[in-house]
Amino acid sequence: MELDEATVTSILRVIDLTGVAGMAVLGGALARTHRLDAFGFVTLAILSGMGGGMIRDALLGQGPVAALTDGAYLLTALIAAAVIYLVRIEGRWWDRTWPVIDALALGCWAVVGTQKALAAGLGWLPALFLGTLTAVGGGAVRDVILNKVPSILGGNTLYASCAILASGVVIAFGVLDLPTLGSLVGLVVGATVCLVARARGWRLPEGYEPSLTRAGAHTLELGRRLRGSARLPLRVVRRMEHDGPPDPSRH
Amino acid sequence: MELDEATVTSILRVIDLTGVAGMAVLGGALARTHRLDAFGFVTLAILSGMGGGMIRDALLGQGPVAALTDGAYLLTALIAAAVIYLVRIEGRWWDRTWPVIDALALGCWAVVGTQKALAAGLGWLPALFLGTLTAVGGGAVRDVILNKVPSILGGNTLYASCAILASGVVIAFGVLDLPTLGSLVGLVVGATVCLVARARGWRLPEGYEPSLTRAGAHTLELGRRLRGSARLPLRVVRRMEHDGPPDPSRH
Amino acid sequence: MELDEATVTSILRVIDLTGVAGMAVLGGALARTHRLDAFGFVTLAILSGMGGGMIRDALLGQGPVAALTDGAYLLTALIAAAVIYLVRIEGRWWDRTWPVIDALALGCWAVVGTQKALAAGLGWLPALFLGTLTAVGGGAVRDVILNKVPSILGGNTLYASCAILASGVVIAFGVLDLPTLGSLVGLVVGATVCLVARARGWRLPEGYEPSLTRAGAHTLELGRRLRGSARLPLRVVRRMEHDGPPDPSRH
Repeated sequence: MELDEATVTSILRVIDLTGVAGMAVLGGALARTHRLDAFGFVTLAILSGMGGGMIRDALLGQGPVAALTDGAYLLTALIAAAVIYLVRIEGRWWDRTWPVIDALALGCWAVVGTQKALAAGLGWLPALFLGTLTAVGGGAVRDVILNKVPSILGGNTLYASCAILASGVVIAFGVLDLPTLGSLVGLVVGATVCLVARARGWRLPEGYEPSLTRAGAHTLELGRRLRGSARLPLRVVRRMEHDGPPDPSRH
Repeated sequence: MELDEATVTSILRVIDLTGVAGMAVLGGALARTHRLDAFGFVTLAILSGMGGGMIRDALLGQGPVAALTDGAYLLTALIAAAVIYLVRIEGRWWDRTWPVIDALALGCWAVVGTQKALAAGLGWLPALFLGTLTAVGGGAVRDVILNKVPSILGGNTLYASCAILASGVVIAFGVLDLPTLGSLVGLVVGATVCLVARARGWRLPEGYEPSLTRAGAHTLELGRRLRGSARLPLRVVRRMEHDGPPDPSRH
Repeated sequence: MELDEATVTSILRVIDLTGVAGMAVLGGALARTHRLDAFGFVTLAILSGMGGGMIRDALLGQGPVAALTDGAYLLTALIAAAVIYLVRIEGRWWDRTWPVIDALALGCWAVVGTQKALAAGLGWLPALFLGTLTAVGGGAVRDVILNKVPSILGGNTLYASCAILASGVVIAFGVLDLPTLGSLVGLVVGATVCLVARARGWRLPEGYEPSLTRAGAHTLELGRRLRGSARLPLRVVRRMEHDGPPDPSRH
């Protein structure tokens, strides 16, 4: 079977816009939880779906960002935000559909971001960085705006790692001069690993703790030493609200 | 009466810089509440007054942002920050003056941002987006830095909506080939609606809740399902601190 | 002794990359406190060490940001993040070494940022702003992502002020047409003042409070008036957790 570049581009575009719509729906659910108004729904939709690409293009510094020059993005986010504002999208079918949209969008955005970085003449490491940023940046911006530490930084199943993987595939196939195949393989690999990781609960490990007993003492010591210490007790309080009192064996 | 383009440009510039100074004063009041030092006062002044325009120009990607090439901006913010740092600006006259400055700056920034987007060749929807971002972005950045969910996203009287309105007026008059008149009308309409909304307490509705009883259950369910759930109890606690226990009829 | 431009450039580059590595180590300690995973370690390393320069270059709008075109930056941050992820860097030697790295990086980044701004044809005030932003922006972004008010805004010993000082030295020597000497003097002055301020506990004063009794009442009044009021009680709570009940004489 011959691989048609135009077909792959079309597939990526459909997934891209579907991902924007999907992120708008997730953003809308968060907006409802936080009791935001209609403008809040729209803002979360735009930032979740396009934030990563906007930051990528601002860092690339090559004219207006794609989210503004391609009118379809804002329109998609607006329509999806309007729908989720009026209708609560939920239920079993959504709980099954959303992870698939999320995983495909993750792979797609990593692929597109990596391609853009390579097209701008950047090396493989910046391309990995921009591919991953494109994929996870929007969700991270949304989390920060909603006043929480971005979930991609810890405590979730493999997510950013799948973007790195997809981006790496694109780079490798680019070296082999097979960019179109690379896009497709990157998308499929990134999305698949994301879905499998979610199903199996695969996570990245936290920072290595040399010894459990020492570690507990160190956490407290670090809390005292670092300027950021004021955060620690609050997080502990929150964790306790949700998980009950901290289990000493975890420290 | 003939409408002189230079006059309108001068009016916009005066309001623009007055708005920067006004945001510096508001930022200073927040800096005092948060017990920040002199550098904190200056930072909040610059980010509140120029943050929206800076992000707009970074997204447009057409050379250095206006806040840096036009020396008057930083100077205005610095002077205003120094004044509010030394003198507590307050009292009845300020409580009456500030909303007018705020509303005029909102309209002015939406007009200027929309003009810039149109001048860069963008369509009407990106122009609406950039006009609104210019008007409300600085305050949102300030809120995020002070560790709270931006107030423009919910719970306040019409604000971002007035920027959207002003931006829409500019776009409509641009289509009619009356850009100068459009700037003036956009400014007046945006500022007026903002002031009236504040006086009358007009707000955007929150996301639609299909049924009160179901909604309460859903909020909890969403809280469990979404990764962002840790925020919810904290917000409820805060709301209770300020408003007393939550009114079940509101859920 | 003749001052060789290439030597100064080399010195700055070594300090620049050492600073990126140092910030990665600090970011790693914070990542451990917040129980982030490996991706969180890398993200904090990149944002802490390069965030200021990235924002500077995005605001300058002159092509891809330096953190992406110069491959050494990302590589340094990655390696340092990997080391701190695996090994807990700590102990007396680190407590003595870190402040020196931190102070040198602060001075170096302020110098480099100011030079870039001047090279882009900006005036002295925007150059001061970009120099300072380069030096302190990364740490501020890291703080915001970790959900706390940036420590540079208040409550710490002189830090941003040292960047402003270093930046001012570069500008002054630029006027005297001695840019190479200016870089070196700016670096040394900025780093030295930062270290001395840390040792002596020099701080910037908080906003002036006209009268102690009035001020306490005002803080409450402001808390009621401003939309940002929800933050206040939480901060008070936090401060109490750390400092014991608030001392009324401090208000």
